[in-house]
Amino acid sequence: MAEHHNAGLHGVSVGQTAISSVGQKSQGLSYRGYDIHDLAKNASFEEVAHLLIHGRLPGIETLDNYRAELIALRELPVGLIKVIETMPANVHPMDMLRTAVSMLGTLEPEEDCLNLDETRHIADRLVAILPTILGYWTDLHEVEAFAAQNQEPTMAGHVLRMLTNNKISNDQRRAMDVSLILYAEHEFNASSFNARVCAATLSDIYSAVTSAIGTLRGPLHGGANEAAMELIQSFDTVEQAIIGIKELLARKTKVMGFGHAVYQTSDPRSDLIKTWSKRLAVESADKCLFDISEAIETEMWQQKRLFPNLDFYSASAYHFLGIPTTLFTPIFVCSRVAGWAAHIIEQRQNNRLIRPNAEYIGPAARIFQPVGQRG
Amino acid sequence: MAEHHNAGLHGVSVGQTAISSVGQKSQGLSYRGYDIHDLAKNASFEEVAHLLIHGRLPGIETLDNYRAELIALRELPVGLIKVIETMPANVHPMDMLRTAVSMLGTLEPEEDCLNLDETRHIADRLVAILPTILGYWTDLHEVEAFAAQNQEPTMAGHVLRMLTNNKISNDQRRAMDVSLILYAEHEFNASSFNARVCAATLSDIYSAVTSAIGTLRGPLHGGANEAAMELIQSFDTVEQAIIGIKELLARKTKVMGFGHAVYQTSDPRSDLIKTWSKRLAVESADKCLFDISEAIETEMWQQKRLFPNLDFYSASAYHFLGIPTTLFTPIFVCSRVAGWAAHIIEQRQNNRLIRPNAEYIGPAARIFQPVGQRG
Repeated sequence: MAEHHNAGLHGVSVGQTAISSVGQKSQGLSYRGYDIHDLAKNASFEEVAHLLIHGRLPGIETLDNYRAELIALRELPVGLIKVIETMPANVHPMDMLRTAVSMLGTLEPEEDCLNLDETRHIADRLVAILPTILGYWTDLHEVEAFAAQNQEPTMAGHVLRMLTNNKISNDQRRAMDVSLILYAEHEFNASSFNARVCAATLSDIYSAVTSAIGTLRGPLHGGANEAAMELIQSFDTVEQAIIGIKELLARKTKVMGFGHAVYQTSDPRSDLIKTWSKRLAVESADKCLFDISEAIETEMWQQKRLFPNLDFYSASAYHFLGIPTTLFTPIFVCSRVAGWAAHIIEQRQNNRLIRPNAEYIGPAARIFQPVGQRG
Repeated sequence: MAEHHNAGLHGVSVGQTAISSVGQKSQGLSYRGYDIHDLAKNASFEEVAHLLIHGRLPGIETLDNYRAELIALRELPVGLIKVIETMPANVHPMDMLRTAVSMLGTLEPEEDCLNLDETRHIADRLVAILPTILGYWTDLHEVEAFAAQNQEPTMAGHVLRMLTNNKISNDQRRAMDVSLILYAEHEFNASSFNARVCAATLSDIYSAVTSAIGTLRGPLHGGANEAAMELIQSFDTVEQAIIGIKELLARKTKVMGFGHAVYQTSDPRSDLIKTWSKRLAVESADKCLFDISEAIETEMWQQKRLFPNLDFYSASAYHFLGIPTTLFTPIFVCSRVAGWAAHIIEQRQNNRLIRPNAEYIGPAARIFQPVGQRG
């Protein structure tokens, strides 16, 4: 069938936002006017979450209070623990997270979707509890030793404590901080748009976030960093990588972690995470992995003029941090939930039901035959 | 702020569909070419579910097999029962359903989203099990007597058995059958569009249906039939209703159950369900309720030229069937899941990521101040 002119809505502006801008000529990225480079170099994830959810960068006192609040909001309710323990051992981590957030919505429901202070509080609760849910679910920790959930004062440390079992260095904390900042928000990406479609019926924040998690789960969206890792690990040497990429391109296989639906010439976030990946590589036992990644980048540019997006060097960075590949997309959730919350709040502030039309291309009117008379 | 020209995407065609058509000049409704009047008068919900999920009306043998399969797929897995029992007693029924479907996705996951036969099977499973989930969750039945789940041979009977505690007449079964047919599908409504946005990332069917349930939950979408019931029950007499509606309109209060985002002059489904509401009213103890409903309809037309939509007379029909008002939107889920599944399958058959753009209206580029230097 012929392609519909609006299929995928690529390049079609469907609403207004004050949360982030991909800038002029599809270059650059800013959150509420602050350039992503400044945020990645100078801010913490807590400041960015506050900027997105509460609308402004916090001052010292507000930030201290906010950090303390996020620590206090990490605890898992008993009902949620029961549900996590009821899931099969081999559950997909994103199915686990989707179900856990939906369950949390039954235990700590949003009472009034027009009370945005309540919404912001639930958003903070989700930011704080998502790493704890992941940490409880992984078999990295003894349940008895789970008090570890409160030992790390920052969100970046909390995520690392929950998802790894290593000693954590300050460099590692800062690398995770930067990654959380970079993944936090990206305009009307599929999961944020999906959350807005849900929120526009005046449904609750848990419905919208559950919905967004299910959308991020898809390999064409959040799953890309895991696919990139699998690609990188399929090669043992730089030489193998160069030959392998040529072969993949010759077979017209899609190489995950390259190009972008919005950016045309480069992803402004890629160099920021690449710097950290390189720095972590120095301390790593797997020294070859960064070189292989760079070889893939070079080859993709030379062969196809395709640039790495945020997902590509996030993969090796997470690997160097000791995080299992199956937890890469869940980390994306821990960060992007701040952006989703911002979009849910913004949608409610100037709400209109999102209800498009479709072009009908099905059968013309036909006569109904009773079941006994059908051919 | 100024309204964005595409805000809400109302009247904007964003894709193609062969599933349903709201017809020329926004009148009429057909499912895959069959007029909704023919389906409501002559088909069963099983035939319509088969038409939507499997693409065609079944012949006698196929229909017999399909009915048997839907009966066989009603059973609740143990893990799901545990999760339902872990939820608080006062949980919102839609939160319960959203969590239950998400949990089912961890117990019976979709292995390959490109194997559409598997997708169709899961869709049938959802059609069959959703009423059982609701029945188990309500306190209408003794758990020991729950074998009732298999006593009714039709989906309409199954829904009534699960959601009421009465003897069920054939008239009641047929009224529910018609209601399930009318609610099954409606083009790119908010929840179906939301399911397509999710499915377009190549996420699984459970993510997309969970997402759609969360979207239908909103009072601007699926919640309308419950709001209509509350309105109708707020009046004791026809005279009160006439005065009350005048007052509501004078205060510019939105009256739920009237008008439609797509239809301009009438909802083709309204007269079909109204006929059944009237017929059920005759046997009902609450004879006044239908007359009050008609008085509200007349008043809304005389005052505002607004027509009742499907939700309005569904409310009184469900009430006459003995269904508690809080279960009205969940019944919508039991029916619309067939339409959602059809949209998920159609999206996958010609997939493109749905990723729109937004118009940035936030702050211009601003300088990042370190936390200690913020005002």
